[in-house]
Amino acid sequence: MIRQGGRLKSRFLDACLRKPVDATPVWFMRQAGRYMSEYRALRKKHTLLEICHTPELAVAVTLQPLARLGVDAAILFSDLLIPLGPMGIDFDFVRGEGPKIDNPVRTSADVERLRDFEPREALGFTMEAVRQLRVELEGKVPLIGFAGAPFTLASYLVEGGSSRSFEKTKALMYSDPASWHRLASKLASVVQKYLLAQIEAGAQAVQLFDSWAGALAPQDYRELVLPHSRAVMDGLQDASVPVIHFATGSSGLLPLLREAGGDVIGLDWRIDIDRGWDMLGADVAVQGNLDPAVLLGPPELVRRRADDVLTRVGSRPGHIFNLGHGVLPSTPVETVEDLVEHVHRTTAR
Amino acid sequence: MIRQGGRLKSRFLDACLRKPVDATPVWFMRQAGRYMSEYRALRKKHTLLEICHTPELAVAVTLQPLARLGVDAAILFSDLLIPLGPMGIDFDFVRGEGPKIDNPVRTSADVERLRDFEPREALGFTMEAVRQLRVELEGKVPLIGFAGAPFTLASYLVEGGSSRSFEKTKALMYSDPASWHRLASKLASVVQKYLLAQIEAGAQAVQLFDSWAGALAPQDYRELVLPHSRAVMDGLQDASVPVIHFATGSSGLLPLLREAGGDVIGLDWRIDIDRGWDMLGADVAVQGNLDPAVLLGPPELVRRRADDVLTRVGSRPGHIFNLGHGVLPSTPVETVEDLVEHVHRTTAR
Repeated sequence: MIRQGGRLKSRFLDACLRKPVDATPVWFMRQAGRYMSEYRALRKKHTLLEICHTPELAVAVTLQPLARLGVDAAILFSDLLIPLGPMGIDFDFVRGEGPKIDNPVRTSADVERLRDFEPREALGFTMEAVRQLRVELEGKVPLIGFAGAPFTLASYLVEGGSSRSFEKTKALMYSDPASWHRLASKLASVVQKYLLAQIEAGAQAVQLFDSWAGALAPQDYRELVLPHSRAVMDGLQDASVPVIHFATGSSGLLPLLREAGGDVIGLDWRIDIDRGWDMLGADVAVQGNLDPAVLLGPPELVRRRADDVLTRVGSRPGHIFNLGHGVLPSTPVETVEDLVEHVHRTTAR
Repeated sequence: MIRQGGRLKSRFLDACLRKPVDATPVWFMRQAGRYMSEYRALRKKHTLLEICHTPELAVAVTLQPLARLGVDAAILFSDLLIPLGPMGIDFDFVRGEGPKIDNPVRTSADVERLRDFEPREALGFTMEAVRQLRVELEGKVPLIGFAGAPFTLASYLVEGGSSRSFEKTKALMYSDPASWHRLASKLASVVQKYLLAQIEAGAQAVQLFDSWAGALAPQDYRELVLPHSRAVMDGLQDASVPVIHFATGSSGLLPLLREAGGDVIGLDWRIDIDRGWDMLGADVAVQGNLDPAVLLGPPELVRRRADDVLTRVGSRPGHIFNLGHGVLPSTPVETVEDLVEHVHRTTAR
């Protein structure tokens, strides 16, 4: 355990605050997942929800990629939908189709029925996993907690699952803005308390996933989404841990994501990282941004594309290397290992 | 029929060339489609492929929205996949799932098997529809022809249908770039000849739909896609009709789309139109860019969001008002009518 003045010495945490680092930190969204044989073996015995609801299993899965990949952070294994359960939403995961919600939210009455709750109790299994993880990690790498942002959670609630066009969500936003704002502010309150509880339990950084915000026009994001994401961010300020704000397909929204908040903005691969960073401003850290599909190609190509990202970043402080979205299930694990090693070696100072 | 010096007087064609117009021209992608009762009635009797393959039906559907909406251009009713048939690809449309290809392209041998063909013969039904449409339209509004761009067509061929992540297409691009380039250049040749045949038959403008190019990182678009789209564009230069180049989710690719070519660049709604136009440069016309989902909201909101687009455009010459993608099937037809009238009235000079 390496500590400096009582604080964990971590290149990931330093990069979040744009401090000098000995090498560019690397972690991956879905770094624990179906691409790893260890994970597939455990999933044969347990459902996704069982893993999320059982601290020992969530801890085991969270730890799976750490030794093997040499990444610079652990991310709690859970699912974006977990905090919807105590709100009164019934859901499950259907193989090949993703989440299915039995009682989607479509009317103002549906919105009113959503319950507020105390995450320390109702999601005690998550907080217990966080506490156990801090013990297991022994200070070697920091632990990232996470939650979905109000728009992304609302889109699952209203659509009843995944969506391509978010038609029902947008129809609610446009046709009944009062119910939309009530829904989004209920979610903002839940998400804020959920993230604060994770931090209290030991999470050393948190990521707010607004995975689907890129489906929105800037004007809609500005009026209907930004105030709720900013409410979450404002509530986290006193917690004094770095906050990462991430959305895919958000190349046209970057100044607004910045405005909503976050110490680090996560970029997907659909924009050159230097152009995206220029739009965000130099006074924020940036996480990203290799296309996860590149890892389906040969290792030489992966290294070349990683070098392109690193060259574009240059000497800017505050870069956290990541993919632009989660690791794809068909990714060879050796390619991921090689990528971590390559980024560390190339950027070692 | 209004002609000036033998040329059709059209605010749509003038705007494509950034000439002064009496009001901002309006047309919509999928302006003929499931949101119209006339179309749904015809689809009860005929499949999508029957309509595409039968000139009289394609003509009837193309004309359906014209009188009702007051749009400034007609667009040939057809499907992006039509030119794949004579290449030796078997496909159909499955209700609720979109296109399904029976024999997807996955190997270099699959690519070699794809046949070149003469569109004037093999797609004679499309050319006949174009000729009949020119007669029916009586010069009132110009007729837009269209085709899918090489990447978008290739993505259907390789995935075997629609896709969210384009994993198989990207895996081919990365793992076997020689086969990818052979596939994309075969498609570029087919698309170019197909568009030239439509122009010869009477299309007065054409749109190249690279609908899914926004899934690509700029570096991948630059190396693996741009050369093939540019080959199509170069082959159209002597035809002297305006060419519209459109891709959704392309906010991070705009300078590269511009580089690939087109007199008009179509923007989706994920970027403010003025910011997008700034990235493209003032010397190109721009089409767009209202979110089609906005039309699921009340007419006042639609007008307000349309005004936002028009205000951002300001006095720049060369704006064609359109949605950022096709009209959604659940759109009320009255909202579409009202939008056309609103844009014309607001911008009348």
